[in-house]
Formats: sequence, structure tokens, C-alpha cells
Amino acid sequence: MSILMTTRRDFFSKTGKGLMVMGASSLFSNELLGRTNVVTAKEDGFKISFAGFTFRDFDLDTTLEMMQKLDAHYLCIKDFHLPLTSTDEEIKTFHAKLAAKNVTGYGVGPIYMKTETEADQAFEYARRVGVKLIVGVPNYELLPYIDKKVKAYDYHYAIHIHGPDMALYPNAADVINHVKDLDYRIGLCLDIAHDTRYGCDPVADMKKYYKRVYDIHLNDATATGKEGRLCELGRGIVNIPAFVRVLRQLKYNGACSIELNANKQDCFTSAAESIGYIKGVIDGLK
Amino acid sequence: MSILMTTRRDFFSKTGKGLMVMGASSLFSNELLGRTNVVTAKEDGFKISFAGFTFRDFDLDTTLEMMQKLDAHYLCIKDFHLPLTSTDEEIKTFHAKLAAKNVTGYGVGPIYMKTETEADQAFEYARRVGVKLIVGVPNYELLPYIDKKVKAYDYHYAIHIHGPDMALYPNAADVINHVKDLDYRIGLCLDIAHDTRYGCDPVADMKKYYKRVYDIHLNDATATGKEGRLCELGRGIVNIPAFVRVLRQLKYNGACSIELNANKQDCFTSAAESIGYIKGVIDGLK
Repeated sequence: MSILMTTRRDFFSKTGKGLMVMGASSLFSNELLGRTNVVTAKEDGFKISFAGFTFRDFDLDTTLEMMQKLDAHYLCIKDFHLPLTSTDEEIKTFHAKLAAKNVTGYGVGPIYMKTETEADQAFEYARRVGVKLIVGVPNYELLPYIDKKVKAYDYHYAIHIHGPDMALYPNAADVINHVKDLDYRIGLCLDIAHDTRYGCDPVADMKKYYKRVYDIHLNDATATGKEGRLCELGRGIVNIPAFVRVLRQLKYNGACSIELNANKQDCFTSAAESIGYIKGVIDGLK
Repeated sequence: MSILMTTRRDFFSKTGKGLMVMGASSLFSNELLGRTNVVTAKEDGFKISFAGFTFRDFDLDTTLEMMQKLDAHYLCIKDFHLPLTSTDEEIKTFHAKLAAKNVTGYGVGPIYMKTETEADQAFEYARRVGVKLIVGVPNYELLPYIDKKVKAYDYHYAIHIHGPDMALYPNAADVINHVKDLDYRIGLCLDIAHDTRYGCDPVADMKKYYKRVYDIHLNDATATGKEGRLCELGRGIVNIPAFVRVLRQLKYNGACSIELNANKQDCFTSAAESIGYIKGVIDGLK
């Protein structure tokens, strides 16, 4: 509770105007948590999207063709589709291509940041791309600097977790422990497979850390531990219906980005099966 | 009700031994309806499978590779993967290929039958293939002959429906009206999209005609009427969660074969999305 209370206090001190307008019943709403700038809420609130990483072996045109085929409309922009060094002209062309396929780039990342220079570059990149959400992996010692940056830019910063593969942010609790006293806009990209691989329960973690969850990676894991491979949604051990149920209970209205690790040959069928699965779960739970 | 009562009477006269062994509580069970020879019941009972038609643009090897990728294990065998004129040696090779990919061919068809000779050929084909379920489209006037054939072979014969596109068996009610006084083993392959396109409700029809449903085609439709296209599961107007719920209530233990009409280029992603969707619905409803 102390984490959430701290978050709320930090947040309220910044949103007095919003509080007065929206009334007491909206005190802890998504709007006040600032997530509506990520993905507009409709029906369920949360939006099924894709992490650019899923299509890492394909250029932007092929990726967008596939997303159109899969009726997918949100993308977290990854650097191999839009390099951090892109010119404004290149960014404009990029957005035009997305718009032509009815796709919105809702955030950028994951971006690894080891130095202040890299953080500066990432925030400027986000500004030039025109998004207010960065999915990042900052070295621990860089966090005070990230704190300054989110205040200066008023962006949300979702830290990606990577399970037992990396010492840096292995699970949700580790992120929260490191950011709980920082600006409320620094939070979590809850990767449900990696959290599971570490031995954590993403459903419990979503409930616990909800107010700091600014992005979600949807995937599945064949087992806990390092030997657990990422796999198509529904084929592993993650209780995805329970996770969707909690998203609804909490009225989460951010993005849920499918992030798969399939090889090039299997990429599109894995993506198709996974988006089909999550839509099926959503419909099945209605 | 009269249809079902007739069915039961016909059936009971043939299964006295089964009745004594299984006891009164099993009077109307799937076992007695003879569906266990189609697909063995486990967990939910019904099995998610593919209609060979879905992969009509691909040879058997490619089809089986895709099915393996999609973790699919049941196939309704279509003639372009195994022609009706196949030799016993070719059939043996066919089954060996399926077995190598952990796929079972649970039935054959749809096979159109206009003459007694064609019906003879289809039943002999099923016998040589070693399955006891034929999905067929017999001309109406051939039904008395089909009645004789199912009695002689003790096979189930599921008549496929085709919505507003064809005068022959447009919907579930039409099949039942034509077979209600024939052998109980002649029944329905309930195609939920075509039934919907005709303006019928496949959920209601499943409840109504359950005891004569020996195969199911899973697909979705963008609209009712001729303008309604078949589409990926979950993208259309068919209430698939309601359909799965009724399969469970009725303890249906036959096959549910995904039958899609996507063009060659979209075939595999459509198949992947659709099997993902149905698995998601199944998990979401648990």
C-alpha cells in the first residue's frame, strides 16, 4: 500500500485541476493516471496492439501489411522500423505509412539506456515521433536522471522486465522497488511471460502494481525458469483469461502489446494465432 | 421433438446391448449416439480440427506442416489431399504422413454425390481410408440409397449445408426435414457460418438438432444473406462464445472443423487466427 499511497500523493499534487473537474468518483481513474494519452479508451478500455519487436525480421511495409491482415491497429514503435536517428522527414513518412494502414504508433521502445546521452536521445526521439510513452530499460543508476526527464517532458516511462535472462529488472517487483519513490510517471511495462518465467504471478502483480503499469506485453511461457520459452498466447502456463479478467476489473485502459519471439518463418502465424487467442478470450469472458 | 423421438426409437432398437451395459443415466449419451468413433472424448469432448478444404491450395505435406505449427491434430480428409481413386498403397502413405505429424484423419469429405455409383465410390473410399464418418452432399433423391448404405456400412453420414449459395441443403432445418425419417446415422454437418448466412441461428439449431449433428464446420460470416462473406472466427456476426457454451452444455463430443475460404496468400494466417480465437473462447469460458 505504501507504494500506491506515495504514487497517489505525488500525482494529486500535480493534478488539482483535474480533480476538481472530474469529481471524487474519478479520483483514481485512468484519466488521472495519465494513460489516456497512450491509447484512447473504448469498450474494454485496453487496446490489443503489437510490439514492433514481434516483427523484427520484417521491414515496416511488410509489418503493416501483416497488421492490416490481422485487423491490428496499434503498434509500439521499435527502432528497426524507425531508427532513433531518423530525420523529421523520415518520421513523417513513417506516420503516413501507418495512417494508410489505419495503424497508430502509441509509444516507442523498448529502448535500452545506459547513459544520460542515450536517455536524452530517447526522449528527443519520442518528442519528434510525437508519442508520450517510452518503453525503456534504463540502467539502475540512471533512474534519477529518468526522473528528471519525465518531469521535464511530461511523458510516461514504462520499464520493461525480462525474467531470469537479465539481472536488470527481472520482474515487476524489482521495477516497483526501484521506482516507488520516483515520479509517478515512471512505471512498468508488465511482460506477463517474463514475469511468469521468473516465478511471479502476473495476475497478482497487475493487481498489486496497477497504478504504475503503463504498458503490457502479452505473450506466454512454456515453463517457469530460464528453460521456459516464450510461445504463442494460450499454449503456455500463463493464465491469460485470469489476466484479462483483472484488466477489466481494474478498468486498465492502456495498451496490451503482443510481443512474440518466433523465428522469421513462424512469425506471422504466431502473431495471427496469438491475436486470435486474445480476442477469443476477451469474447469468451464477455 | 418428434424428430428426436423418432431418432431415439430408431437408435434404441439397434443398441439394446449398449443400453444394458451403460445404464439409464447414459440413455442419450454421445456414446450411444455413436459419435465416439469419430473423435475420442477428452476434457471438453469436442475436438478442434481442420476441414481439408481450408488448405485446398496446398499439397498434403505443406498442409501437415502448417497443422503441426498450429498444434492441430484432427483433419477431415478432402479429395484433393487424398483422391477417391487412391490405391491402398497411396492411402497407407497418406496415413503414415499424418501419423508423422501427429494428425488423425477423422472423416472424409465433403463429397458431393449425384448418383448411386458416386455414393458407392464414396462409401468404399471411406472404408479403404478406415474412417466411419462421411461428410456428404447427396442429391435429395439419393437419400433413400444413402439410408441403405449407412445401414450396410454402419457409418455416420453428416450432410453439409451451404447457406443461400445453393438450393441443395441451404440450412440445418432443411437437412433435418429431409433425413428425419431415415436412419439415425444420417445427420448434419452444422456449418455455423452458412447457417447464419441463411438467416438461421446456429446456437438454436445446435440445441434443436443436436442428436443428428455428426460434424461441425467452424467459421464466421460478415453478414447474413448472399453478401455475407466467410471470415476468420471472431471477426463476423456469429456468436461463437454462445455456440461453444452450448457444445459444452450438450456434451457434444464430435469434431469442430475450422473451414475457411481465405485465398492462398491469406490461408495460413487466417487458419492461425481462427484456431487461436476458438482456443481463446474455450479458455475464456472455463
